[in-house]
Amino acid sequence: MRIKIDGQIVDMLAVQMENHVVTMIDQRWLPFKFELKRLASWQETVKAIKDLVTRGAGSVGVSGAFAMAQAAQEISTTLVLEFNHLLKEAGNIIMQARPTAVTLSAAVKYCLLAAEKGTTIEEKKVLVDQAASDILTSDLHASKTIGKEGATLLKSGSRVLTHCNTGALAIQDHGSALSVIRFAHSAGNIANVYVSETRPWLQGSRLTTWELQQEDIPHQLIIDSACGYLFSQGLIDMVIVGADRIVANGDVANKIGTYEKALLAHTHGVPFYVAAPITAFDLDCPSGKNILIEERPAKEVRTVTGRLPTGGMGPIQVAPDHTDVLNPVFDITPAKYVTGFITERAVLTKIKPKEILKLVEK
Amino acid sequence: MRIKIDGQIVDMLAVQMENHVVTMIDQRWLPFKFELKRLASWQETVKAIKDLVTRGAGSVGVSGAFAMAQAAQEISTTLVLEFNHLLKEAGNIIMQARPTAVTLSAAVKYCLLAAEKGTTIEEKKVLVDQAASDILTSDLHASKTIGKEGATLLKSGSRVLTHCNTGALAIQDHGSALSVIRFAHSAGNIANVYVSETRPWLQGSRLTTWELQQEDIPHQLIIDSACGYLFSQGLIDMVIVGADRIVANGDVANKIGTYEKALLAHTHGVPFYVAAPITAFDLDCPSGKNILIEERPAKEVRTVTGRLPTGGMGPIQVAPDHTDVLNPVFDITPAKYVTGFITERAVLTKIKPKEILKLVEK
Repeated sequence: MRIKIDGQIVDMLAVQMENHVVTMIDQRWLPFKFELKRLASWQETVKAIKDLVTRGAGSVGVSGAFAMAQAAQEISTTLVLEFNHLLKEAGNIIMQARPTAVTLSAAVKYCLLAAEKGTTIEEKKVLVDQAASDILTSDLHASKTIGKEGATLLKSGSRVLTHCNTGALAIQDHGSALSVIRFAHSAGNIANVYVSETRPWLQGSRLTTWELQQEDIPHQLIIDSACGYLFSQGLIDMVIVGADRIVANGDVANKIGTYEKALLAHTHGVPFYVAAPITAFDLDCPSGKNILIEERPAKEVRTVTGRLPTGGMGPIQVAPDHTDVLNPVFDITPAKYVTGFITERAVLTKIKPKEILKLVEK
Repeated sequence: MRIKIDGQIVDMLAVQMENHVVTMIDQRWLPFKFELKRLASWQETVKAIKDLVTRGAGSVGVSGAFAMAQAAQEISTTLVLEFNHLLKEAGNIIMQARPTAVTLSAAVKYCLLAAEKGTTIEEKKVLVDQAASDILTSDLHASKTIGKEGATLLKSGSRVLTHCNTGALAIQDHGSALSVIRFAHSAGNIANVYVSETRPWLQGSRLTTWELQQEDIPHQLIIDSACGYLFSQGLIDMVIVGADRIVANGDVANKIGTYEKALLAHTHGVPFYVAAPITAFDLDCPSGKNILIEERPAKEVRTVTGRLPTGGMGPIQVAPDHTDVLNPVFDITPAKYVTGFITERAVLTKIKPKEILKLVEK
């Protein structure tokens, strides 16, 4: 991703590894402070994942794979059985850094499977390095292809609404929904991006605006509740969002607030696209009705975190103590409101569950 | 309104006047600090209106009327013409405290008209006192009647969604939408009230939760974006909101975010009611399309105000400097999504513009 640092334009990844040292853009202080975190051991990388230095499905998965490569490198035994055992132990600890992140456990398992294919410890180390590199390469390919394919859907002068952060910070190196917007901008077709702030964590306010600023893509921040107004004023030509999970009937689980935008788009005749890598499809789940919606702690709604008047980052309280809160993390958008899916394999503009199946099984 | 202070239950109004001293509940520090502000002169009352010590259509109007009564009392001339002139001058200053508040200018004009009917200065002073008292009485009557009438629409076990603050802090002594909820609660029919936080000012988080806590009405705070989820889970039996303005064809201008809730309610077959006093009806305006939507400063979206870790109230920044923002204050809910209006004259459960006309002209 392109980042402006002291007037210079620097090209870098949100998470990268060189000589088994991992470097992460510290997302906790964005957009107010740009800081890189260097992580020299796998334990440091695990702590960084746990502390949310990085976030987003792709970035968390790649970080886990890099931690595995670091762990393999650091194991000093000469006994193959002991090496296997220690690597597996490290894998378990890495997966526990974000227990509900599917991409993290998948990355760890992929690296362990790769290690099994080697005979000597040296071979195993090379294979784990290669597996970690594969995962990054796969993300780079997916995010770029999603962007290029998706961008062909946008006409000149497009005004796009997006939600949450689906950018290069979340899936390298271009994002999912934001990748489409990046490529459409390069083609000169973006007139404006409406960024909904995305309470309670404000990924829209904090991260998406920051990413768009880096590339001078025109945008306006809005409160989540302003979407209805924008649609009724005819200000939106397309909605593009990401997805946490797309199930067999085409229902989409995504950041809370997505469903309302889909319903508004449908009502106002505006296309609603979901951009996501193939890894987001879960065809074992038949319908959105089968998805259990995670609820998170009350304090996320009772407080807001940002830059304090004193300079540091911190939370302020916005509701009375002990106020009861309902804080669901995502909602389900029914397939009937989705105009199409943008993936690295194809763009499906009409949802037929059988085609989704074919797409994912390729 | 019932307020819990140090374990005691106290009954008081958000804005009241005794011996020409105005007392306001200071809404700026709610819900974190309960403080009364005593205002001994009309200039102090004007400053309090300007500084948002009180807010809400009703409370602002009543405060303006009280300021007029204070001004009349304080004018020391013995010349009738000079009295008239000075009172009119005070009225102009009072109206300018919140230039776009229709209730404020209406209250001032009503008081000036009353003064004109007196011959002597003493008569005029009594008439302005009486006019101010009329305005309060009218609000007290409207908010109570709206609540009593509206509550008959709610069945046992009702789960209600509301937006913004439409309570006793906004229109005395029960509110509009919140008055319906209060009376329904007294009848034992409220199972839960979902309070949407109402960015950017968070009137839901800060004020509505506080009012519901005072009366032990069960409630849960949600982010504005969570409404779609609640509807899709079948958790809402009725939506009740207030209105800034209801126009001749039944379209409703209200706090930004209202339209989305109406569309969701319509889609999920949930009744959507608008509770508002007759003064909110503006039949000179033919349709919602004719309403100009006010946009407010970017900093309201780039920041959030609440209780700082250091104890005081203050803003934190949540978006990059200079981020462009679109910050509309209200949106238009088309009449077709409104199940009915709850007013102090009648409850209209089917919208026919001619009936609205009859209702308002009574």
